Amino acid sequence: MLSMSMPVPPALDPPRRILMGPGPSDTHPRVLAALGAPTVGHLDPYFLQVMDDSQKMLREVFRTKNELTLAVSGTGSSGMEACVVNLIEPGDRMVVCVNGVFGGRMADVAERAGAVVTKIERPFGEIIPADEVAAVVKKVSPKVFGIIHAETSTGAWQPLPEISKIVHDAGALMLVDTVTSLGGIPLEVDEWELDAVYSGTQKCLSCPPGLSPVTFSPRALAAMDARKTKVASWYLDMSMVRNYWGQQRAYHHTAPINMNYALREALRLVLEEGLENRHARHKKNHLALKAGIEAMGLKYAVPASHCLPMLNAIQIPDGVNDAAVRSQLLNEFGIEIGGGLGSMKGKVWRIGLMGETSSQRNVLVCLAALEKCLLDQGQKPAAGAGVAGAIAAYR
Amino acid sequence: MLSMSMPVPPALDPPRRILMGPGPSDTHPRVLAALGAPTVGHLDPYFLQVMDDSQKMLREVFRTKNELTLAVSGTGSSGMEACVVNLIEPGDRMVVCVNGVFGGRMADVAERAGAVVTKIERPFGEIIPADEVAAVVKKVSPKVFGIIHAETSTGAWQPLPEISKIVHDAGALMLVDTVTSLGGIPLEVDEWELDAVYSGTQKCLSCPPGLSPVTFSPRALAAMDARKTKVASWYLDMSMVRNYWGQQRAYHHTAPINMNYALREALRLVLEEGLENRHARHKKNHLALKAGIEAMGLKYAVPASHCLPMLNAIQIPDGVNDAAVRSQLLNEFGIEIGGGLGSMKGKVWRIGLMGETSSQRNVLVCLAALEKCLLDQGQKPAAGAGVAGAIAAYR
Repeated sequence: MLSMSMPVPPALDPPRRILMGPGPSDTHPRVLAALGAPTVGHLDPYFLQVMDDSQKMLREVFRTKNELTLAVSGTGSSGMEACVVNLIEPGDRMVVCVNGVFGGRMADVAERAGAVVTKIERPFGEIIPADEVAAVVKKVSPKVFGIIHAETSTGAWQPLPEISKIVHDAGALMLVDTVTSLGGIPLEVDEWELDAVYSGTQKCLSCPPGLSPVTFSPRALAAMDARKTKVASWYLDMSMVRNYWGQQRAYHHTAPINMNYALREALRLVLEEGLENRHARHKKNHLALKAGIEAMGLKYAVPASHCLPMLNAIQIPDGVNDAAVRSQLLNEFGIEIGGGLGSMKGKVWRIGLMGETSSQRNVLVCLAALEKCLLDQGQKPAAGAGVAGAIAAYR
Repeated sequence: MLSMSMPVPPALDPPRRILMGPGPSDTHPRVLAALGAPTVGHLDPYFLQVMDDSQKMLREVFRTKNELTLAVSGTGSSGMEACVVNLIEPGDRMVVCVNGVFGGRMADVAERAGAVVTKIERPFGEIIPADEVAAVVKKVSPKVFGIIHAETSTGAWQPLPEISKIVHDAGALMLVDTVTSLGGIPLEVDEWELDAVYSGTQKCLSCPPGLSPVTFSPRALAAMDARKTKVASWYLDMSMVRNYWGQQRAYHHTAPINMNYALREALRLVLEEGLENRHARHKKNHLALKAGIEAMGLKYAVPASHCLPMLNAIQIPDGVNDAAVRSQLLNEFGIEIGGGLGSMKGKVWRIGLMGETSSQRNVLVCLAALEKCLLDQGQKPAAGAGVAGAIAAYR
């Protein structure tokens, strides 16, 4: 008999959190139900219909007519890698904008793919100025230009249309990270002429993590078709993946069936609400949280001019124990918020108001709970000021 | 208002299949329930416990003490890529055994990673002889030797212990695909000294597709630590992934939370049954199916000496329409079986008896349904012979 050295762990029983960190966000019960629906095969006619439905809905949400629009079988970072490795061949020049952790990650991914990378760097929390982009792309003449629409590490909201024009005028492809922006703020893939765009499921789409929606413009496809070398990653090679998502239905890898069920349901919820309503909801709840936070005497880490609604980076007051507050929120209230990343580690909290999480109820309970934690930390926020500030913003 | 060009697709309503193809296999209701449990954050203490539980259970199932044992955040093919790209640097020599589609895929992955690949090729359905391995590794002196334990495209069961010894004597690392074997036939990672082993969740573990269990020996770790270049894939770079699964808990990418819930539950079911019992069940149902298939006058595509129990490749009789039979099984009976891949396309059916799917009930209904389909195709199987043959094998 084979020896067993461990007892079987107890049944799964996850705590019920309010996910107000930088993602994952809360999932709608309909999405969880879809996730747990019976598995069918990856070439089952029913699953092919699920894929078609999701492609159509993703095009709506990305605001594009791009044929090559699908969900990569990995989390958002795999979508980043898919966009980079399909466009870059060893020796190609790429400009990457780095004003947070995810820009830094993109530069790393690009270098591993063999790109000669030029970085445009800005301190965490700032955005990338268009005139600097113009100067650098003129000098470098890159094949690909990469930028983050919504920097999850800082909460900075990067304007894209002007930069996209500059990048195209320089003959480069525009590669954009929309992991945190998709479904939460306006994104116009076709109108802004974005060429390779990836996102994640677990932010403003409110689907559990595990897939990465991507879309590629005809210009990006032409660049892929003109490659002289194979894509370094077999798993992420769009020349094969597209033949499975396209009408050929050529087997590539076994798709994550149930995750695709969940994405389809999450997209249905997005379309039922409507993109404009969804953006407005994200904005409204952000403004209320911001009013409450500032009424408590706390400050945002990012100027209002480019502050994302779904990711609120808030300066931790002097004398407050970062980890203690986050633990108290989690253990006493079941509220998850995020800590800082990179140069913002220990300096900010990141409060997410993404997708299902973005609600009046969550804004108010978060402010109330935070008030108690700050009192327990010896701070003296004016009693009830946070909640009152938010309520005033809502009325 | 943003224009919408499509109606919202109808609610999800997948058909209830019996998944008797090459994977995914049927999932236990407990696994589906786990999949749909409330999402928590990827750094939530509860989720870290889920990861620890799964690592421990994966070590049991892989039969290893390897510290670096975890679930890659992608399907089985991403596990293949993870094993290859973490061990191979450009210019490294790798020998890959190709006797089916998945060996061919591994060679492709290795070439993309920059390996100088030498193939040991055998016709589909055959296994790789140890003496040929000895000759080739002596000549090539590779860094890595790659082989498929259970060729899902052919149903061939590759013996490993003797080859592993030969490979180690030549100073190479032993990289093994166990996508279809793990949980269905004996696999002894430590005893056989396998160095890099990957699997999938959707075969004999009976969890939906989306994760790839992997394990690396200390010898493989030493090779990774000795690398001079960064791993080409950021997403699959084990030097970072291991710091998230290890006690540092360093953020790398957002783990697919709910898929990891499901894997944990699937592993609990495996341990509750016990590996030996599970292997015996797979064998028993295979032998019954085989008795039934042969009683109907059909033939296996692979000799009994190396025929996998969970993947039964059966020659399609002359005059029978492959696609028509598979469609009839699906549409009339809700039974999915697989067609042939590569050189076996149109020549074989692949009947999977994997994990939850491997049951007496499924064997009997499959044989009965197949008899009807063959009759409808103008064949003349002896009435009831398939079912009677299987019942005799069970008694």
